[in-house]
Amino acid sequence: MHTTFQIETRGQGLYEITGQVAAWVAGAEIDAAALTLFVRHTSASLVIQENADPQVRTDLRAFFHRLVPPGNDPSMAYLTHTDEGPDDMPAHIKAALLPVSITIPTIRGQMTLGIWQGIYLFEHRSQPHQREVAALLR
Amino acid sequence: MHTTFQIETRGQGLYEITGQVAAWVAGAEIDAAALTLFVRHTSASLVIQENADPQVRTDLRAFFHRLVPPGNDPSMAYLTHTDEGPDDMPAHIKAALLPVSITIPTIRGQMTLGIWQGIYLFEHRSQPHQREVAALLR
Amino acid sequence: MHTTFQIETRGQGLYEITGQVAAWVAGAEIDAAALTLFVRHTSASLVIQENADPQVRTDLRAFFHRLVPPGNDPSMAYLTHTDEGPDDMPAHIKAALLPVSITIPTIRGQMTLGIWQGIYLFEHRSQPHQREVAALLR
Repeated sequence: MHTTFQIETRGQGLYEITGQVAAWVAGAEIDAAALTLFVRHTSASLVIQENADPQVRTDLRAFFHRLVPPGNDPSMAYLTHTDEGPDDMPAHIKAALLPVSITIPTIRGQMTLGIWQGIYLFEHRSQPHQREVAALLR
Repeated sequence: MHTTFQIETRGQGLYEITGQVAAWVAGAEIDAAALTLFVRHTSASLVIQENADPQVRTDLRAFFHRLVPPGNDPSMAYLTHTDEGPDDMPAHIKAALLPVSITIPTIRGQMTLGIWQGIYLFEHRSQPHQREVAALLR
Repeated sequence: MHTTFQIETRGQGLYEITGQVAAWVAGAEIDAAALTLFVRHTSASLVIQENADPQVRTDLRAFFHRLVPPGNDPSMAYLTHTDEGPDDMPAHIKAALLPVSITIPTIRGQMTLGIWQGIYLFEHRSQPHQREVAALLR
C-alpha cells in the first residue's frame, strides 16, 4: 500500500500532517506493519514533535534559524552555493540535519505514536512550495 | 512480530538497550527482515553509538548540552515554551535533532550492527522517566 | 533481498552511492517495497542531498566542520575521548547528529527519490576507510 501526500507550504515553519497520515493508515487491514514516510526534497524535513503547545514549534524554528542563519548573515560568509538566495543553502543544511525519512510501527491501522507526538513537514524555504511525502505501509 | 521495550531513565544521558533488542530479535525465524525502533516521546531519542569507551557517551552529552543549553542559560532567552522547566524545550529541540526512529536490517535473527555499534536511548529530561520504544520486525 | 555495499573513502566528505543502490534496486520484482540503508559505523553517516551543484557538498562539509570542530580546536577542550586523534570524537558526534539509517519507498524497482536527491555516504574521518552499508529491500 503506497501513496504520496501533497503539502502546500507558505514559508518556513512546521506543517502538521498527522491527521491525513492517520486517516490513510486507518484503511489498512494489516495487523502489524511499518509505515515509512519519505520527503522527496532537499530543502524540507520530516519531524515528530509535541502537538500540544504551539510555542514548541515557534521555539524549534527559532533554534534552527540561530543554528543555521540565512546566507546573508556575516557568520555564513563561507558559503559558496549562494545563487538561489539566502534561504537556499541553509535549507539544504537543515535538510541534512533533520530526518528525510521516518518509520513508525502500526498496529491494526493505528500508528504507535506517543500521546504528545504529531508528524510535521518542516519547510526550510521562504517562498510557497508544493511538497511531496511518499508513504509506504508494509 | 512487535513489542514495546520499557526503559527507566534517571536523568539525562545514554542508556544502552542493545542486549534486550538483540535477545528479542534472536527469536525471529525470518531470513532477512527490517527491525524498526521508534521512541514514543518528544523529549528522548534513539542513537547508535560506540559501545566501547564510555567517554564517548560523556562527550556526546557534553556536546549536546553546549549545542542546546538549558533554558535558563542567557543564550536561550529567546525560548517561549518555558513552563515545564529549563530542561523541557531543550529536550524537544534535541528530540528534533536526533533520531526518533531507526531501521536496522536483520539476517537470520541477528542485527547487522557494526562491531562497535550499540543502540542507546538518549534521555533529554532531568527527572526520572519511564520510556517506551515500539519495535517491529517484519 | 539484502546486500552490503562497500565504499572506499579517502578522507572527510560526501561520496555518492545513488547509482550502485539504484542498480541493485532495479533487480527487484516487488511492486511496492521499502529500501533500508544502514551504515555499519559510528564515524560515518548516510545523507540525502542535492546532486546537482557540487558546492552544496562543499558547504555542507564546511558547516559541519564549524559545528563540530576538530578535537585540537580550543572550543573542544572539554572532550575526554581523545586517544584516537582530533578527528575521532567529532566524527562520533557527527554520526549521532546525522542519519545512520534511511528508508526509501520503492515502486516497481525504482526509488521514489525526488529529482534533485542523491544518496551519499558522509565520511567523518580523515584517513582512508573501507565502509559498509547494509541494504534490505522488503
